[in-house]
Order: sequence, then structure tokens, then C-alpha cells
Amino acid sequence: MSIKDAQYDVHKWVQQFKIEYFKPMEIIAQMMEEVGELSREINNRYGPRTKKSPEDTADIEQELCDIMFAIICMANSHNIDLDEAWKKKMDKQYGRDKERFELKG
Amino acid sequence: MSIKDAQYDVHKWVQQFKIEYFKPMEIIAQMMEEVGELSREINNRYGPRTKKSPEDTADIEQELCDIMFAIICMANSHNIDLDEAWKKKMDKQYGRDKERFELKG
Amino acid sequence: MSIKDAQYDVHKWVQQFKIEYFKPMEIIAQMMEEVGELSREINNRYGPRTKKSPEDTADIEQELCDIMFAIICMANSHNIDLDEAWKKKMDKQYGRDKERFELKG
Amino acid sequence: MSIKDAQYDVHKWVQQFKIEYFKPMEIIAQMMEEVGELSREINNRYGPRTKKSPEDTADIEQELCDIMFAIICMANSHNIDLDEAWKKKMDKQYGRDKERFELKG
Repeated sequence: MSIKDAQYDVHKWVQQFKIEYFKPMEIIAQMMEEVGELSREINNRYGPRTKKSPEDTADIEQELCDIMFAIICMANSHNIDLDEAWKKKMDKQYGRDKERFELKG
Repeated sequence: MSIKDAQYDVHKWVQQFKIEYFKPMEIIAQMMEEVGELSREINNRYGPRTKKSPEDTADIEQELCDIMFAIICMANSHNIDLDEAWKKKMDKQYGRDKERFELKG
Repeated sequence: MSIKDAQYDVHKWVQQFKIEYFKPMEIIAQMMEEVGELSREINNRYGPRTKKSPEDTADIEQELCDIMFAIICMANSHNIDLDEAWKKKMDKQYGRDKERFELKG
Repeated sequence: MSIKDAQYDVHKWVQQFKIEYFKPMEIIAQMMEEVGELSREINNRYGPRTKKSPEDTADIEQELCDIMFAIICMANSHNIDLDEAWKKKMDKQYGRDKERFELKG
């Protein structure tokens, strides 16, 4: 599946409803909710109040997709092509970090 | 470009360095930084201290990819296949929300 | 009640237990959980999926205190006197913002 | 200094300007910016890209106050008395957690 497909999935889903995309501030608030839920999962697995086995990653998986959904809503509502944007990011990242961390021997 | 490709991009990038993936808590902190930077962009465009035109979405684009990078680091370090996870999410989303918002006429 | 009292409340509470303060990264993750819950409340009151009356602020109140609790844990575990820090902040804020927003006539 | 004083500090500061309090969604976005900056400090001190000494807590101090400022803006704009809210929280916390973590011997 391509990133474009995922952007189209969200587009189709939103198109069903009268509401259209949330406003940018609302998407930010939504994203914060989801990042908060991921934090809870991570804290439950790796934090001091350990409640869950680190092996059980089902919820982490779904929380990551919930954040991705919010990212794609923000991208779609700004006509951002994440595929192009990602390529730009990777170019920048390789340029920037090549002297930032120690390379393998 | 597929989501798998993006996961592989990050894998290749991390493989260059001695550091390996950050620990889950560190990735969460990293993700929070990036969500904070996206919030700043959104506030600068749509908030009360408007500094930037809503038309200029270059930074939003890059902030979204920075969050995606953190998501993929979390996914890769947990052997999560985001492609599969996304399909599960979309199935759930369609099931759950079909009676949640008002459908178009 | 003073800010020092609140810092002491948290100190006393933590002192009961064997766990001591969480590590800084764990407190950050905890703070993100609480900020996410506040976002949910704000979205439920003011966002597109309105579920609650904006008049009912009981949960907002508690979420704000949950974030304050995390702030105080971070402060206490770093021997930070929030009272002093707040005074410094207010001095800076007055200096910085006096020409930033339009003053009342 | 009391929590009421801090709430009054923010009240006085906002009263200077025409803008009044930001809207709740804008305060949430502002809070996320500040929490993101705190995360950066924490990551810089305790994370894998260590840049700063854990002893140097000056920035942590100020980031904590920036988050407190956002909390107080949210409280003030909802007529929430944080002093009262904090007392309620502490009562709840003591009730709830007394059997949650292991007590000291």
C-alpha cells in the first residue's frame, strides 16, 4: 500500500460525512489525544507502573495508526502530498545527520 | 512510494549509525517535540498571533514528516508492519463511525 | 495555598511509596497522557464532535491539576523552586511582550 | 506566593492587551508547544543525543513555568480556581493510590 493510498483512504472516509475535515486546531487537539494514548501504552509497557508485557504491541500498533490518521487529515486538508514531502525529508535528513551520529565501523 | 518503503528508508538511515533505535520513551519524547513544532506552525498560521500566511504550508509539510519519522521509528523498533496495521485501522474505523457522524444526503 | 504547599503535597505523597519520583522521561510521558486527556475534554466541549456543554468544566479542572501534578513531579525531582521560577518568568514575560500585542487604549 | 497570586499575575498580564484570553483550542496548541520544548530539554539532558548536563536545569525550570502559564490561561478563561481544584485532586489522589503502589516498610 502506498502513502497516496492511505491519503485516499482518509479522503474517502471523510467524504462520506457532512462534517468535512476538522479545522487545523481541532486536528492538533485530536493528534494530541492520540499521542497521549500512545504515551499511556508506552508507559504501561516500559514505565514504572508496568501493567503490560512489552511483547504485546497490538495497542501500540493501533495508536500509531491513530496518529497517522491525524497526520493525514492535516496533510489532506492542506493539499500536502506526503509522498513528495517524505522524499524531501529523507534528502534533508541524510544531508544533515551524516556527521551527527557516529557511523558504524 | 509505499509505507513499507518509508519504513525501509528509516531502517536504512538508522543502520548507518551505532546508536540503533532510541528507546520507546525517547521516541515518545522526540514525537512530542515534533508535535510541539507542528502546533507552533498551526498557531502561527491560524492562531491569535498570526505570523504566517495559511497558504504557506512548507513547514507544516515538514513537521508532519518529522512526526511520521518518529512513528516509523516506534513501529520499526517494535517490528510493527504499519501497512497491515493501517488496514486493520481502516476496517475498524469504517465499522465504528458509520453511525457516528451524519452521512451526506 | 502556596505553590510551595503544592510542591510539598506532591513530596509527601511520593514519600509514602517505595517508588520515588519517576525518571524524567517517564514524567514526560505521564505529562503527555494528561495533556492528551485535557485535549479530549477541550475537543469534547469546543470541537466538531461536541459531546459536552462548555459550561461543564469539572473535568477540565481535574485535567489541569493532573498536568500540574506532572509539572511538580518534574520540578521536585530537579530541586526546582517553582515559586522562584515563576517570578523569573513573569519578569521576562513583562519585558518581552510589552511591545508584542496591542495595548488597551 | 500562592496559586491565586499566579492566577492573578496572568490575569493582570492578559488585561493589558486587547486580545483577551486565547480560545481553548489555541491554548491547547500553545500548551503543546511548551510541552514539546520541555521534551526537547529532557531529551537533551537524558536522551541519546545528550547535549547538556543533567545538572543544568535552568531551561527545564522555565519550560515548566511556560506550561504552568498555559494551564493558568485555561483555568482563568474558565473561571477555575486552581487552589480548590488542587485540593480536590489531592483528596482523590490519596484515596485512590493508597493501595496502588507499595508503601514504605
